[in-house]
Amino acid sequence: MPYITLKENLPGITGLLDYRQDTALPIRQLTQILLRGESTLSEGERELIATVVSNGNACRFCTAAHTAAADLYLEDAAIARQVKNNIATASVSDKMKALLTIAAAVQKSGREVTPAMVQTAKNEGATDKELHDTVLIAALFSLYNRYVDGLATVTPEEPAFYHRLANILQQKGYMPSEDRYATL
Amino acid sequence: MPYITLKENLPGITGLLDYRQDTALPIRQLTQILLRGESTLSEGERELIATVVSNGNACRFCTAAHTAAADLYLEDAAIARQVKNNIATASVSDKMKALLTIAAAVQKSGREVTPAMVQTAKNEGATDKELHDTVLIAALFSLYNRYVDGLATVTPEEPAFYHRLANILQQKGYMPSEDRYATL
Repeated sequence: MPYITLKENLPGITGLLDYRQDTALPIRQLTQILLRGESTLSEGERELIATVVSNGNACRFCTAAHTAAADLYLEDAAIARQVKNNIATASVSDKMKALLTIAAAVQKSGREVTPAMVQTAKNEGATDKELHDTVLIAALFSLYNRYVDGLATVTPEEPAFYHRLANILQQKGYMPSEDRYATL
Repeated sequence: MPYITLKENLPGITGLLDYRQDTALPIRQLTQILLRGESTLSEGERELIATVVSNGNACRFCTAAHTAAADLYLEDAAIARQVKNNIATASVSDKMKALLTIAAAVQKSGREVTPAMVQTAKNEGATDKELHDTVLIAALFSLYNRYVDGLATVTPEEPAFYHRLANILQQKGYMPSEDRYATL
């Protein structure tokens, strides 16, 4: 049971974003810009960053939600599973391996990112903006994971829930909208 | 030296918020609402939450900045130092001790917050909104600390720098403004 009173039909992050909508709006805007805005990283690649960080933080709700979103965008359910298991051997580009390695470091602490990790990413063609966005997405999911678990929100068990949520994240994005969770 | 090219006259978070202003705006808005918006927690108390989390993450820039801001608001330079050293014996209310204990748990992981911590806070009069805001402020500074250190931004050594920054944070708040850092 959550530590504060939230709507029972809105599990995980959804109830928190409903609870305080004035703080939810900038959180949603930041996420929309970073995960859906113009970028040389695909939506699927950015959802992988969210997945790796959430998995590192053992946030079951966020990991399931962003795994499902990555699966949808990548049209391949193996890749998110692979990066959660071992970034080095996953079926992603060498640039993505380097960026996901940085994201996994940021999940532990910003101080875990080393010049060598950054140099590897640059050698694989990562731009300053890609490095910036990788670190900021990893930092943002460090926020989300703590928000979701720090208030003990409910984690649905059925995989179908996360498929429905991932469809909303793909079709509607992260911004608030009327009847946003009508199909949840 | 930062891992990406940032303006040299803007150390720590200031250069990052200048680097990508479209993502900076919602980060600033969220911070302004949480740390300066209407609340039953004082600005000084909320700056103490930011300080405890930044200190736990060993983010030197953020710890120095929010210690200086807390000192200004609390008009007492001992309190922030005390909470960084030992929350249990610091000169703050029992409710704040309970909330700072929760914030320190969130810094490690959302999963570190226990029902007993929350019950203690509720017994001391903490409301749902105060619990929510404590967790979200702690989560937000988990983002900031990773953003600042994950890109290896510069940490000024002179205490006077942080006093100037704290004055800006008190007089102008967290929103962007013309000539915001003119006195930095």
